[in-house]
Amino acid sequence: MTGLLPRILSPADVRSLPESGLPQLCEELREEIITVCGRVGGHLGASLGAVELVVALHRVFHSPQDALLFDVGHQAYAHKLLTGRRERMGTLRQAGGIAPFLDPRESPLDALAAGHSCTAVSAALGMLQGRRQLGRAGHVVAVLGDGALTGGLSFEGLNNAGGSHLPLVVLLNDNQMSISANVGAIPALLRTRQARAFFEALGFTYLGPVDGHDLGALLPVLREARQSSRPVVVHAMTQKGRGFPPAEADTQTRGHAMGPYEWRDGKLVRSRGGQRTFSEAFAAALDDAMAVDPRVVVVTPAMLEGSALVGLKARYPDRVHDVGIAEQHAVTFCAGLAAAGARPVCAIYSTFLQRAFDQVVHDVCLPGLPVVFAVDRAGLVGADGATHQGTYDVSSLRALPGLSLMAPVVGEDVAPMLATALAATGPSVIRFPRGTLPALPPELHAAGTGSVQGARWLRRAEAPRLTLVALGPLALAALEAAQGEPGWSVLDARWVSPLDAPALREAAACGHVVVVEEGTIRGGLGSAVLELYAAQGLSPRVRLMGLPDAFVPHGDARTQRSELGLDAAGMRQAGRALLEMGR
Amino acid sequence: MTGLLPRILSPADVRSLPESGLPQLCEELREEIITVCGRVGGHLGASLGAVELVVALHRVFHSPQDALLFDVGHQAYAHKLLTGRRERMGTLRQAGGIAPFLDPRESPLDALAAGHSCTAVSAALGMLQGRRQLGRAGHVVAVLGDGALTGGLSFEGLNNAGGSHLPLVVLLNDNQMSISANVGAIPALLRTRQARAFFEALGFTYLGPVDGHDLGALLPVLREARQSSRPVVVHAMTQKGRGFPPAEADTQTRGHAMGPYEWRDGKLVRSRGGQRTFSEAFAAALDDAMAVDPRVVVVTPAMLEGSALVGLKARYPDRVHDVGIAEQHAVTFCAGLAAAGARPVCAIYSTFLQRAFDQVVHDVCLPGLPVVFAVDRAGLVGADGATHQGTYDVSSLRALPGLSLMAPVVGEDVAPMLATALAATGPSVIRFPRGTLPALPPELHAAGTGSVQGARWLRRAEAPRLTLVALGPLALAALEAAQGEPGWSVLDARWVSPLDAPALREAAACGHVVVVEEGTIRGGLGSAVLELYAAQGLSPRVRLMGLPDAFVPHGDARTQRSELGLDAAGMRQAGRALLEMGR
Repeated sequence: MTGLLPRILSPADVRSLPESGLPQLCEELREEIITVCGRVGGHLGASLGAVELVVALHRVFHSPQDALLFDVGHQAYAHKLLTGRRERMGTLRQAGGIAPFLDPRESPLDALAAGHSCTAVSAALGMLQGRRQLGRAGHVVAVLGDGALTGGLSFEGLNNAGGSHLPLVVLLNDNQMSISANVGAIPALLRTRQARAFFEALGFTYLGPVDGHDLGALLPVLREARQSSRPVVVHAMTQKGRGFPPAEADTQTRGHAMGPYEWRDGKLVRSRGGQRTFSEAFAAALDDAMAVDPRVVVVTPAMLEGSALVGLKARYPDRVHDVGIAEQHAVTFCAGLAAAGARPVCAIYSTFLQRAFDQVVHDVCLPGLPVVFAVDRAGLVGADGATHQGTYDVSSLRALPGLSLMAPVVGEDVAPMLATALAATGPSVIRFPRGTLPALPPELHAAGTGSVQGARWLRRAEAPRLTLVALGPLALAALEAAQGEPGWSVLDARWVSPLDAPALREAAACGHVVVVEEGTIRGGLGSAVLELYAAQGLSPRVRLMGLPDAFVPHGDARTQRSELGLDAAGMRQAGRALLEMGR
Repeated sequence: MTGLLPRILSPADVRSLPESGLPQLCEELREEIITVCGRVGGHLGASLGAVELVVALHRVFHSPQDALLFDVGHQAYAHKLLTGRRERMGTLRQAGGIAPFLDPRESPLDALAAGHSCTAVSAALGMLQGRRQLGRAGHVVAVLGDGALTGGLSFEGLNNAGGSHLPLVVLLNDNQMSISANVGAIPALLRTRQARAFFEALGFTYLGPVDGHDLGALLPVLREARQSSRPVVVHAMTQKGRGFPPAEADTQTRGHAMGPYEWRDGKLVRSRGGQRTFSEAFAAALDDAMAVDPRVVVVTPAMLEGSALVGLKARYPDRVHDVGIAEQHAVTFCAGLAAAGARPVCAIYSTFLQRAFDQVVHDVCLPGLPVVFAVDRAGLVGADGATHQGTYDVSSLRALPGLSLMAPVVGEDVAPMLATALAATGPSVIRFPRGTLPALPPELHAAGTGSVQGARWLRRAEAPRLTLVALGPLALAALEAAQGEPGWSVLDARWVSPLDAPALREAAACGHVVVVEEGTIRGGLGSAVLELYAAQGLSPRVRLMGLPDAFVPHGDARTQRSELGLDAAGMRQAGRALLEMGR
């Protein structure tokens, strides 16, 4: 590759280009982003929209003396390409490769670790305050998508920044979209002159709106912002997916994130897996439930696409509520719906439910309201990496009184679980992983998928020596692990709360128990099983398997499972070792 | 008592009074609130300020057909007095008595369970949406303090409500204070004509400002709001502590909450305990740390008083940051401070840290930033009840990689723990309970309080049969329990993360282990100990003691501890039973 980009090894190189060369640099950045994402997939829409913003930022601010904090980092592929990571960009989102979002451990030019949105303003204000405290100079810039403006954390940050009078620079990258269309009053406001009034009311100087693709307009405004002695917001209008026709044409998401594709002769060639996912199975079960029960409504925090709810929203526009990036509101809104007699189902990723932990405790469980949480992406998520792993749902939620918690093994389990949850008088969680549905093995067919009462024996040895107790689809790997192992039984725990005590007592009776789950070992299902055994005075030898005491990075989930021993080979090895210990 | 109040048994009675009688009713309500709070203590300031609001609401809206949702419920003592609970108000905040906040299980006229702030708008919107869904009529009103406007959840709710076009009524009870002075840009805004612009920008019709103590002005505005076919906010100005001279005179908090007092001859007679609390011990340790290390800064979400930081704020106005009711921001702001090289200490109650769980995971632990969390009110909190119990900090936080978690037994432990946390390269939690400091017993004096490395043996039996492993001040009760029990040892666990494996192995070697903590049993320290034993192939008999699988209501914490077996008698009984089982 020739051109300007290969010669840009650091932001200083951006600054030393003649200004007339910047449009070409932007064009090369776009080409590179489109090429890389075609090869490995990625969050392409926002990054394409923010190319000029990133170039202008590095032109005007001197990073890392000036700190640039990108909210989420969806927007920041151009930033990665300009900060010495171009040659490795082909490894984006792959094991050992360039991280999906930003990470200070990957580059000192990434000021903020950011996979969840809405954190940039608060972190930037802290950074600016901290620098003042220590007598360090330098500007601090928070780059924020308009989608993040619906999240309460952004607002808390803006309120405090506005009140601080510190010269924080907020660059609002307004592409008029969240992942899908924005929600609520704020997006409409940004289209009007009230935008200025809104930010001025919050204590900011307002500059803009400015065309975020016009460097000639953008650079002077950023320079003005850099001179400000008080909080300032630069409102830049951009187009999500800019420069990639398939993304520009997709008015639903403007190519928010895409799997690998080929862009050939002006046409997009994609190999879509086509296999059904857990999300889709859940949406189908919801569809059936909504058809027969008018009380059922669905709430999602900006995840219509990810949670496979687009079709449902089209069919039931008044019963599927996308509340925007606002997880806390999503849960408390569900509490209100349930209190009014509706049956809300909150479809939310495991990692984002962390945002609403208090709302689950205080607004749902404490009054015991019948809200159903469909916790998607529970367990390893693959390429999205450490910020998105669904690790802590079981450990944080299983302590909450009155909250039922269950997990399907196969798609056939989903509908009866949803029916059980909707029939309950209190709150329920159904957790399921990212990815495609496994096939129904004969053992499950025999054990039955109609009812979900208690745990389910998938294999019962005649002279049992060891029981593999598994949660979710890992039960299938456990079945495979037990093949040919004399005396090995397999129990699908199915419920974390309440535990099926009789089944687990039976498991203990064989003397050796291996508990397997795709969630943190600390405080997870395994520790619940240990608590039960301690309370009942049972002392089988127990081995806990699950996610380790470390943040699991991006990579192929299947490979990671195998590395963590969460496959048939790993379970077989663990079981054998436990039996050895017992001799 | 004669007068109007004894004849008000339900809101219908408020409506049937002649309008000319309402001022007298308000006066009687104030007297009653002052009398009750004098006897039992309580959140008096906001309730005194909201008397006319509550009367006007019950006059204009027909509860429960119309739903009134009071944010937090600080404001709602008058509501309790008007809804059939007057005769029992003397039991306020006491075991088995009237709840400190609102609770639908106490009265069908309490539409919302609310001890944490900022939930009312989201819950009210859900309730209105749910009623529409089910074809039920009725108005829904959210009553919100201005202090709650700094919380992101309120903003998420307002953004969604404004976008919904549903006729939600928001009554803003603006007393110009949070618990102490408000924070950020919004409070200043509310004082200006920008208030209208702000709410209109959010999609609301704005009515006001109106004098919230002038029924003649308030009633017509509320009637107008009731007629609205779209979202409407009524902005009422009130005076916190209104009608109680000592509260009116206290410009710091306007008598936010007070312990029992006597109001005699125009003078306030209070019996202040005078004993030093854990909060005060922590603040003193912080003071010392700040004096020697200019990097140390303190962040609190609206809890300057509760966390005993008022003196520190006066001494270091630029290094103690009250960010308002904004727990998420508090934590992410700390992350930014730490990233800049400062050493932030986030002083926060256990129950409110639930609000920032994701920020602890994603913004602090994932990048491994050295933020110190001073988790106050960990364990039973007494009169504030179920919404405020510090139950889930250990179970939710101990799963987070790289997060140290420790607990002091006595005040003397606090400073070395803070020093250890401030010297760490990663994040730390120091959890301590509400209440006064215990005296230093000779065993602790002997075991030493200078260093906090690992667990601490408080008593080591010569021929050990059982070890009581305790966390926090419960270790003192454990010491008492072990008195005269031959073969009983006592270990102060001190650290939950990382566990002191050698000490716990030694505990296991005696065959019987009782783990005692003031936090949920499910997933707490006890389950961590079980995980350790399972991993190391140890199988002592273990009994876990702690908070049960239920929400613990308001009451006297000491009594509750004894009922839950978390005192010397309970531990002795549990230990003996465990030894019996082992025979």
